[in-house]
Amino acid sequence: MTFEPETPNFAERVRESLSRQAFMTYLGATLAKVAPGYCEIRMPYRPELTQQHGFFHAGAMAAVIDSACGYAAFSLMPADASVVTVEYKMNLLAPGRGDTLVARGEVIRNGRTLKICRGEGFGVRNGAETRCVEMLSTIMMLANRQDR
Amino acid sequence: MTFEPETPNFAERVRESLSRQAFMTYLGATLAKVAPGYCEIRMPYRPELTQQHGFFHAGAMAAVIDSACGYAAFSLMPADASVVTVEYKMNLLAPGRGDTLVARGEVIRNGRTLKICRGEGFGVRNGAETRCVEMLSTIMMLANRQDR
Amino acid sequence: MTFEPETPNFAERVRESLSRQAFMTYLGATLAKVAPGYCEIRMPYRPELTQQHGFFHAGAMAAVIDSACGYAAFSLMPADASVVTVEYKMNLLAPGRGDTLVARGEVIRNGRTLKICRGEGFGVRNGAETRCVEMLSTIMMLANRQDR
Amino acid sequence: MTFEPETPNFAERVRESLSRQAFMTYLGATLAKVAPGYCEIRMPYRPELTQQHGFFHAGAMAAVIDSACGYAAFSLMPADASVVTVEYKMNLLAPGRGDTLVARGEVIRNGRTLKICRGEGFGVRNGAETRCVEMLSTIMMLANRQDR
Repeated sequence: MTFEPETPNFAERVRESLSRQAFMTYLGATLAKVAPGYCEIRMPYRPELTQQHGFFHAGAMAAVIDSACGYAAFSLMPADASVVTVEYKMNLLAPGRGDTLVARGEVIRNGRTLKICRGEGFGVRNGAETRCVEMLSTIMMLANRQDR
Repeated sequence: MTFEPETPNFAERVRESLSRQAFMTYLGATLAKVAPGYCEIRMPYRPELTQQHGFFHAGAMAAVIDSACGYAAFSLMPADASVVTVEYKMNLLAPGRGDTLVARGEVIRNGRTLKICRGEGFGVRNGAETRCVEMLSTIMMLANRQDR
Repeated sequence: MTFEPETPNFAERVRESLSRQAFMTYLGATLAKVAPGYCEIRMPYRPELTQQHGFFHAGAMAAVIDSACGYAAFSLMPADASVVTVEYKMNLLAPGRGDTLVARGEVIRNGRTLKICRGEGFGVRNGAETRCVEMLSTIMMLANRQDR
Repeated sequence: MTFEPETPNFAERVRESLSRQAFMTYLGATLAKVAPGYCEIRMPYRPELTQQHGFFHAGAMAAVIDSACGYAAFSLMPADASVVTVEYKMNLLAPGRGDTLVARGEVIRNGRTLKICRGEGFGVRNGAETRCVEMLSTIMMLANRQDR
């Protein structure tokens, strides 16, 4: 799907908002790509992010995929709006294995107040991606409440 | 609901497994209570765990609530089993505000292979709890595959 | 939780709206109880409502539990609003066995635009209830759009 | 994704099992297509299947999409297995409008015991499809328990 952004500087706004999320910095997650209704975040492997078998912890993966969905939605919002996750559901499809976790979020329903998003998480090993998480989420726009 | 544990040392097993989850240590999450089919984890507030408005990040809360559910389920499993989250869904009910996040998980359906769990997250301020997350999750037992 | 309804005739409005849902009539589902933020619907057993083993079909149960959640939310809305389900997630805990399916929905977070609800389904046999479905759902108020 | 079925007569088994679901017959739902890991079910519009605005009721749509997912999973199971839905989550993306509801289910993770499925529902009007439901579900194989 292709969407029209409501602000010309949507990418700047996403980058700036993400930079203020201390938890994303703590996870080492960085913005890789943003387009209207789409966002990609990458998180390099670190031992601190693992569960008991040495793979990415589901919680760390969910956090960045939820953020990718939230910013995919935020990219379509007007300048005076902020964003909040209403809910999400995720299935683990495979262990989170690899040197990087790639999180991709895309808007599949662009409602005025609610944006429905699909998120995916991929473990990258030697350049090959394996999907390990599928997410379906509901993101809400808070109007007249600037994100700053 | 009350459940019979399959091992006498279920609490020891939960504590030991949690201690091997590097990500839980990274979040500062510690086991507060465990009973057959029940687990409580606490995570003190730190700026690294926040979103852009200074509250607990949904991702950090989800990670510990998911763990509370997983260990509630693990407490009912036999000694040679390990545990994996199949999926969860969570709703954010209120901002994650407070000096501590309390995560509670309980088994609501104790199937042999699958345990269905309910999880809740509470922000604690001045001793008063506010529920900020409701979770519903499916946890799987992997038989004959010791957790270590 | 106790809630203040926004209209004195909330029960009447729920009953009237439910009566216009042809699908609920087709399922034989009827309103059993309504209170502010709470709704109970009952569906008697009929062979047409079953899956291949003769139990209530998950789809039939989900439909009435979703409606119970939706009307629990609707009971808290003003007179000029209508209601729509945004999403739900449900877990099957046990087969839907019994002569009646009782669906209970309650609001657990009464936001202005979004109401978060918990739903449960119980199979009734010889007067004893067995919980067979647990649901967590998000219901939206459409303002200035009367339900009629 | 392409999958190898475990039985040569997988399509026959799906068709036969669906025909024993009284509730699917009651909804007027019929099998349109089955392939390994994929199933499509169609449900023609009837006034009995509607909510208060005359569109397909979410509950009726969910029931057939859940069945499409379940049979997508069942198509990959051995001859002595039966199938049960563990859980699903669905988002409503648009009103269920049209003369037919098309439900499509596909397996996105083919585990031995658990199959994770993606489901979609489309309203068809004048031959054009509008996606109105997105579903993500977990389906379980019950081994050594023939479906009959």
